[in-house]
Parts: sequence; C-alpha cells; structure tokens
Amino acid sequence: MDIAMIDAARARLGERVRRTPLLTSPFLDEIAGRPVFVKPECLQHTGSFKFRGAWSAVSALAPEVRARGVLAYSSGNHAQGVALAAQLSGIPAVIVMPADAPRLKIDNTRAYGAEVVLYDRFGEDREVIGAALAAERGLTLIRPYDEPLVIAGQGTVGLEIAEDCAALGISRAEVLVPCGGGGLTAGIALALAREAPWLRVRPCEPEGFDDTARSLAAGERRANAPDARSICDAIVTPRPGEITFPILQAHCGPGFALSDAEVLRAMRHALLRLKLAPEPGGTVALAAALFRPAAEPGLPVIAVVSGGNADPDMLLRALQAE
Amino acid sequence: MDIAMIDAARARLGERVRRTPLLTSPFLDEIAGRPVFVKPECLQHTGSFKFRGAWSAVSALAPEVRARGVLAYSSGNHAQGVALAAQLSGIPAVIVMPADAPRLKIDNTRAYGAEVVLYDRFGEDREVIGAALAAERGLTLIRPYDEPLVIAGQGTVGLEIAEDCAALGISRAEVLVPCGGGGLTAGIALALAREAPWLRVRPCEPEGFDDTARSLAAGERRANAPDARSICDAIVTPRPGEITFPILQAHCGPGFALSDAEVLRAMRHALLRLKLAPEPGGTVALAAALFRPAAEPGLPVIAVVSGGNADPDMLLRALQAE
Repeated sequence: MDIAMIDAARARLGERVRRTPLLTSPFLDEIAGRPVFVKPECLQHTGSFKFRGAWSAVSALAPEVRARGVLAYSSGNHAQGVALAAQLSGIPAVIVMPADAPRLKIDNTRAYGAEVVLYDRFGEDREVIGAALAAERGLTLIRPYDEPLVIAGQGTVGLEIAEDCAALGISRAEVLVPCGGGGLTAGIALALAREAPWLRVRPCEPEGFDDTARSLAAGERRANAPDARSICDAIVTPRPGEITFPILQAHCGPGFALSDAEVLRAMRHALLRLKLAPEPGGTVALAAALFRPAAEPGLPVIAVVSGGNADPDMLLRALQAE
Repeated sequence: MDIAMIDAARARLGERVRRTPLLTSPFLDEIAGRPVFVKPECLQHTGSFKFRGAWSAVSALAPEVRARGVLAYSSGNHAQGVALAAQLSGIPAVIVMPADAPRLKIDNTRAYGAEVVLYDRFGEDREVIGAALAAERGLTLIRPYDEPLVIAGQGTVGLEIAEDCAALGISRAEVLVPCGGGGLTAGIALALAREAPWLRVRPCEPEGFDDTARSLAAGERRANAPDARSICDAIVTPRPGEITFPILQAHCGPGFALSDAEVLRAMRHALLRLKLAPEPGGTVALAAALFRPAAEPGLPVIAVVSGGNADPDMLLRALQAE
C-alpha cells in the first residue's frame, strides 16, 4: 500500500468521480474561532466518498474476475458505492447489510441494482456471511476499508484537499476526518504525507466508538465495547483495521470523540450555514472542527463531511437540536 | 446591456465567486423521466447567486463613489450579497428589508456588517424608502434586478452552465431558472444566447407570482395580484423588470408556475437525494424539472437551485412534505 496506488486510483476514477469543492461560511469560522473549510463528500455520487474506493477496487479487477460479480458488507455507504460501481460495470453485486441500517441506504442500494442480504448486527458476523456467499457464487469480496485498492480510492480525497489548499494559500492546517475502519482517514493521510505534509490529519469518531483515538494513544489496536450505541451508523466499526491502523499511526495526530448531541448540532449548522444535508457519521469531523479546540489558536481546519445518506427523521432531529 | 458586460463581470468576480458544480441523482432522473442536472447556487457565498450580481455592481463603481457606501432593498438574498460585497470592499451598506423576511436572512445581513432598515411589505414602498436613504447619505443604490451590472453578474451562472454542458456533451437541453424580477433568468439567457443557443431557458415562478409567464404569453408586462401569497419569499416580485423583460422576451421559452406543495416536495427531494438544503424560492425550477413535462420526451434539463437561506421551520415543513 503506497501513494502510487492513490495516483493510479485517481487515473482509473478519471471523470467518474465528482470533484467536490471546499465550502466556507463566516458563521462557522466564528463558532470555531478559526477558518473552517468543508470538503462535502456528501455531494459525491451515491452520497458519500465510498464510491471512490468502490470504483477503485472494482475497476482494478481482472475482467474475467470482475465479470463474475462482487460482494460487500456494509452499513450502507460502501454498499451504495459498490452497487453503483458494479452497475456502471455491468456486473452483479450482492451486499450484506445490517437489518437496522437506515431505510434510505437499503432502498438506495437496491435501486443501484444490487441484491441486498440483511443480517442482525448484534447477533451475526457479517464477515462470515460475506465469505460464505463469495465462495458459493464466485463473487469477489470488496472489503470496506482493509483493502489497499479501497484505501487508494479514498486517498483521492486527500489529493484534492492538497490541491485546493495550495490554490487557497493554506500552508498549515488540521484535516479532520470521520473515522470508522479508517479507510478514508488512512487514504487521506497517505496522500497528504507526500503532497502536503504540513497538513495534519486527525481522526474523528463517535463517543463509544473511539477505538481509533484510544488505539493511537495506546500504540496498539483496541476494540469498542460491544454494547456501545451511536446515531453515527456509518462509522460504528468494532476496531481499527489491520491495514489502516499502521498508516494512521505513522501519519495522524490524536483523535477526537464526539457525542450524539454534538453531531446533531453540527448537522444543524451544516443545514443552515452550508446548505448541506449530511448524515450523522459524516458530520463528526465538522463537529470536532466547531466544538473542539485547535492544536494551536487560529490554525485553519479542513473538515471532511464524508456522507449524506440520512433518513428524514434524522434530519428532523438535527433541525430541532439546540 | 450585452454579453460583453457578462464577460467583464466574470473577470471582476475572478476567484471571489465559488464555481458551483452540476449535481445529479439517478433518483431524480427517475422522477423526471429524463436526465436532471442541478446547478446548486445555494452553495454560493452568502447562500445564493445574488453575491455574483452584487459584487459585479459594487466592484464596477468608481472608487470615490464606492467609498461613500451602497444601499439595497431586498427580501434577503440580494441583501446578503450586497452586504458581503460591501464588507469585502470595506465600505458601508444600508439594506431595506421587509419586516417579515426570514429571520435567518435578516440576521445574516446584519452579520455581514450591513445596517438593516425594516419596512412593511404590504403597506410601504421599498423603492421610495431606498431612494430617500440614498439621497440623504450619498449612498449608491444597487437595484436587485433592473440594473445591467447586476444582470451581468448573474449571467456568469450561464457561462458556467455552458462550459459544463460542453464538458458533459449535452447538446440540447432546457435550462429552468427561478424567476422573480428576472435578473438571474435574463443574465443566464443572454449568456447562453451566445455560448450555447441550443440550451433553452424557461423561467419558473410560484403560483400567484407568475407575472413573467403571463407577461411572456401576453407579449407585455403584467403584474401579480396584490393579495397573492407564497412561501417563495425570494421571488415574490410585483412584475417583470423593465430591463429584464425584453431580454426574457427575446430569449426564453414559456414559463412554469409551481404550487407551494410542489416546491416543498422538491425541497424534500433536494435534501434526501442531492444532500442540499435549499430555500423555497430557490427550488421552483427543480420542482418544474421534476413535476412538469419536458418540451420533448427525454430532453435533459438543467435546474438552477438559486438559494438556500431557509429558516429551520421551512426545512422541517419540507422534510414532512408528502
């Protein structure tokens, strides 16, 4: 896994990926007490950055392997990314999703032409279900984060951030990234380590799922309590990835953990100030940018808003948040 | 008023304007029965396209005139555009706003450093109030639409649409534009008349405020009933502009009128499918793209979402719309 894979992923993505802008609002700068730049990957195809990694992985398969189809397990955003990548490639996709995933994500995954297999997130193991289906049907498993080709695709977000910061003359900043298994965070960190090492990546997680922050502090992978709950369905992974964690250790600063209430308040600000409708898991980094102190006073911050596939009820809760 | 003024406005805007992308969603294509492309000017600085025209006008003033300050009357989006343009220029701004404008718009205008003067939209004449203030303080009035420099700034949206359609290989399409006084519609129509005459502009208005559609059909300017009401506060102007109407006559196809219910449904689709939080007046063209037939079956449509300065209650209503 190296930066050359990110360059190659960018070449394969080409015009298929939507180049998201950097957004700003003076009202957010005022709350944060420093310049805030938002990378809205909720505007990406399928409503999250996950399409980047999915296309990167699917497009890199040998044609005869790809033709048999792909399989993924996902709470919903990787599911949609893989489903669309498969649809665009004209191949079958089977997606293993938790039965309690947001309705919108399940419906969308089916709408992109995938076969959806639901499972119980608290009683069954999605990796076991996925492996069995892959073996049975000759499908290739596209892992959500512990897969170099997927990390490489997510890393293209980092290349874009580096270019935009150069254009804006941002010479030092923190880059806050929503972190589940760590694919997006690792990809961005790898890209910036070459392109803009003066931008420091810091992972952001929900309270109760701050395995990455605790693992970074401990110097080894730590798991979350099995009974933890969060509204941030997109990033409630059990522990840091095997491949992603060493990358985070090499390149990232300390992590942040955000409460559900903070995430809802940040969603409200995104709706009213940025005119964006993000999902909870996609908004943890914006919440950290707004509600956590900078490493140094006034240091600019770039917050990745990684996804926007929220059910309407969650947007209602955010609008009513104090 | 000619296209050269739009080119000049674009040069003056330079990097100050945010280049908004064209967004898509297969779910919207399915509803509309044709490819839908959305130009999200709600992501523009100040949350609407109005910053373009405001900067165009303010930046074109002679320095000694500009230094005395500017004045505008506006329900809120032109207000914020002029306020920010003045703030960036280091000059005073006085904005005359209806007392029943959305709270967010009044607060934002003040936050951009402008002095806000409120008036009764149903009992007082904002043009009279504005003219008196301008004379008294030596301020230059920046008209919201019947001003060539403002139309020229809004026309830069048309230049971007023409470029994006060329890049996407869209050779024929309808371009639907929210229309109040007609500044944005006229600017886009002028730009496309030179750059992409195969793209036909059609104005979109709220029911009860379809003065432009009726005026185009009648061949002369018609006014709206004084007792009409709409949730689309951004575009509830009394009649087409003197300068804008002849431009619309020369270049636009027939207009559309949308109900409040249709606008709320389109806002819900924007929130859930595009991850955008638009305001009612900014969403009439998207509503027309989704709920009105194409001039020819399957003809692609580009809908400008012109603003996103909605109060939270309006977003709540949209999320609960059927």
